[in-house]
Amino acid sequence: MTDWPGSPKKLGETTVNADEMLSALAIANEISTGRLSPNEVFEHSAKRIADLEETVRAFSHIPEQLHAGLGPLRGIQVGVKDIFDTHDMPTSYGSAIYPDHRPVADAALVAMLRQAGATIAGKTVTTEFAWFSPGDTTNPHNSGHTPGGSSSGSAAGVAAGFFPAAIGSQTGGSIIRPAAFCGVAGYKPSFRLFPTIGMKQFSWSLDTVGFFGATVADAAFVAAACSGRNLQPSANPGKPPRIGLYRSAIDAKMNKDMAKTLDKVAHIAAEAGATIVTIKEPKALESGRLAHATIQDFEAALALCDERHRFPDLLSPVLAKYLEGCIVHTPQDYDKARRAANRARKASRALFDNCDVLLLPSAPGAASKTLKSTGDSVFNRLWTLLGMPCVNVAGMKSTSGLPLGVQIIAPFGQDKKALQAAHWLEKKIQSTRTKSPFV
Amino acid sequence: MTDWPGSPKKLGETTVNADEMLSALAIANEISTGRLSPNEVFEHSAKRIADLEETVRAFSHIPEQLHAGLGPLRGIQVGVKDIFDTHDMPTSYGSAIYPDHRPVADAALVAMLRQAGATIAGKTVTTEFAWFSPGDTTNPHNSGHTPGGSSSGSAAGVAAGFFPAAIGSQTGGSIIRPAAFCGVAGYKPSFRLFPTIGMKQFSWSLDTVGFFGATVADAAFVAAACSGRNLQPSANPGKPPRIGLYRSAIDAKMNKDMAKTLDKVAHIAAEAGATIVTIKEPKALESGRLAHATIQDFEAALALCDERHRFPDLLSPVLAKYLEGCIVHTPQDYDKARRAANRARKASRALFDNCDVLLLPSAPGAASKTLKSTGDSVFNRLWTLLGMPCVNVAGMKSTSGLPLGVQIIAPFGQDKKALQAAHWLEKKIQSTRTKSPFV
Repeated sequence: MTDWPGSPKKLGETTVNADEMLSALAIANEISTGRLSPNEVFEHSAKRIADLEETVRAFSHIPEQLHAGLGPLRGIQVGVKDIFDTHDMPTSYGSAIYPDHRPVADAALVAMLRQAGATIAGKTVTTEFAWFSPGDTTNPHNSGHTPGGSSSGSAAGVAAGFFPAAIGSQTGGSIIRPAAFCGVAGYKPSFRLFPTIGMKQFSWSLDTVGFFGATVADAAFVAAACSGRNLQPSANPGKPPRIGLYRSAIDAKMNKDMAKTLDKVAHIAAEAGATIVTIKEPKALESGRLAHATIQDFEAALALCDERHRFPDLLSPVLAKYLEGCIVHTPQDYDKARRAANRARKASRALFDNCDVLLLPSAPGAASKTLKSTGDSVFNRLWTLLGMPCVNVAGMKSTSGLPLGVQIIAPFGQDKKALQAAHWLEKKIQSTRTKSPFV
Repeated sequence: MTDWPGSPKKLGETTVNADEMLSALAIANEISTGRLSPNEVFEHSAKRIADLEETVRAFSHIPEQLHAGLGPLRGIQVGVKDIFDTHDMPTSYGSAIYPDHRPVADAALVAMLRQAGATIAGKTVTTEFAWFSPGDTTNPHNSGHTPGGSSSGSAAGVAAGFFPAAIGSQTGGSIIRPAAFCGVAGYKPSFRLFPTIGMKQFSWSLDTVGFFGATVADAAFVAAACSGRNLQPSANPGKPPRIGLYRSAIDAKMNKDMAKTLDKVAHIAAEAGATIVTIKEPKALESGRLAHATIQDFEAALALCDERHRFPDLLSPVLAKYLEGCIVHTPQDYDKARRAANRARKASRALFDNCDVLLLPSAPGAASKTLKSTGDSVFNRLWTLLGMPCVNVAGMKSTSGLPLGVQIIAPFGQDKKALQAAHWLEKKIQSTRTKSPFV
């Protein structure tokens, strides 16, 4: 067997290390130079899946055969969250209403990935309609803990080394949070940069598709390859970024581990030459965070209007109750929330007067010891609402050994800047870890 | 038989008058007061459809039985453009790729209409994927002429008195233009005010759902009833509106009939007390109009990425060729066009410094004598891009006797203002017509 990019080893049933993840960039390089064939890559993944899927449960569907495409993503397997339509695989949206649903066409993003040569590794577990009710997926770092959600299977599958990349979606915190909990890179692009067409929508003002990879560069590589966009971070970016350490009242929601880690990351960045400034949350952004719920609730009640009326018994009780509650919002409440969101978007521009990117926790802490909740999106919602690019940077661990993530956020439309700074930070964290085990 | 709201008469095979249209407001009133039953309404429509559908060809599917719902739209039949998913009727998107497609769930807007008590009258003919290639629908005012598109069957069906209301979508000019050509009211709401979820999308930055009715008040009534929004124009709106007569270089595209009619409408409005000011197109809006094509092309190539690759032979040659041409736009071209669109949106606010609404032609002239093209969206594209509410006001005729339409446009989010001014103008035009036949 070839020297494997990402050195596979036999693992304990429930614990993987970053070393076991697959690098999309490295695999693409091995394939393009002929050192690996797509079939060797697929066989390697099949073995890992055979070994670990029983525990991780990342997939809602695994195809019987994989075929390699042609293009920059040849031989790259991409896990597809099961709210994206696929013409050749069942698509159930995590819902009992759609058990045998088989769409006619692929979602736009799935078609874009295939056009770039990617192979769909399978459909990955989503919470019900990408909202709250968890699927069966466990955290590859400890199967008693949540992988986060709603893109549970996509994040867990990358962490478990089942596939080097995956797509998901974020309406609250459904990319950044599972990426943080599973210790992988997660990239939520600027709003509407990538199409949501053919994705089951929950809230049309918030739903944003995104990417997972072993590292920031891997996630950026897949996003760049399928879109033709210049997103890949440069190895020599020049000056270290000016980082705004974002402080708000919700910082109290961070647990001690997370607060300590955030300080440590800021320290590592400063040591490596980054300028660190503190940014206090403006009032307009505090109001924006509150507006998120009203916008999501109002739109979800309409997005699932048919399901809510014709299939009430096939909704989970928690979703049925939530949707019932959603209809209390009047169009006037919704319009007021949209105006608050617009004010927040305007106010957000000034955040970057003295910094290039923001640094925040990706979640209040590491993944909780439960499979009944996918965690809290409190540190994510505002940035989804603002449509800004967010990137989870992995590499830190909680005292219990579970991954902790921080996120880098850039202004709307400046996705490359977010990815570049996140890549830089990831490298600095990695080099710290090599010097002394980083906790 | 009861005294029918909209006085049905036996018509010539190919010519209808406004008198034969059905008023959603009047029917709802007759039903709520018990003077008409929903079944009487349905039978009336069935008879008209039996008489005229062979010529008009508004429907792609007619259900065998209609059932009345409960709510403000009880007994109101709504024609649904066949790019909206319906769980109980085939949904073909005007495409040979989807001949037997039967979605699992209703589109959000269809579900909202049903929730408000509406009955889906059937699926109405759309051009292929709501783009260019026409369906079979003819103009009810003269079957040799186009009904306009892409919402061809929805506009024609209202004009023919098949149903009192219909829904459609506009990416370029697909609501306002067919409404103008068929002599009905068309309302394109502010961008994202109504969900496009469950609608086959072509361009996610432009696709906007909308409504057709016999009059502005009828279209507004249906939009208001299904959304819970305060959209219905008041009978006593107070002061006449300040109207900005919008002038741009593309005015040269108006034919003589249209130019004369636009002046006449402005004259009627001024006579009725409206203040008329002339607004010259700012440079940023001229650039915005050009940006529309790049944005639509770039997004369409991705929206139909799967169909383009897997079913090239089932696309019409003109669509296949168009999509092939679309891929010349790079992400950089697209981003440049989006920035131009944003500058146009900002510049558009100043248009309303001295007026409440804008007045423009809805199309270069009346419907052309062809069924091979649905006409030119040149007067619509910019306003779709800007996301502003547009309302077609019918009631004028060309020298050849075909309807001519003008559109009223209000600032983004001020849909009620657009509908109110359009309603006011429609009434003034109607009263002119009663006094002396208006040509």
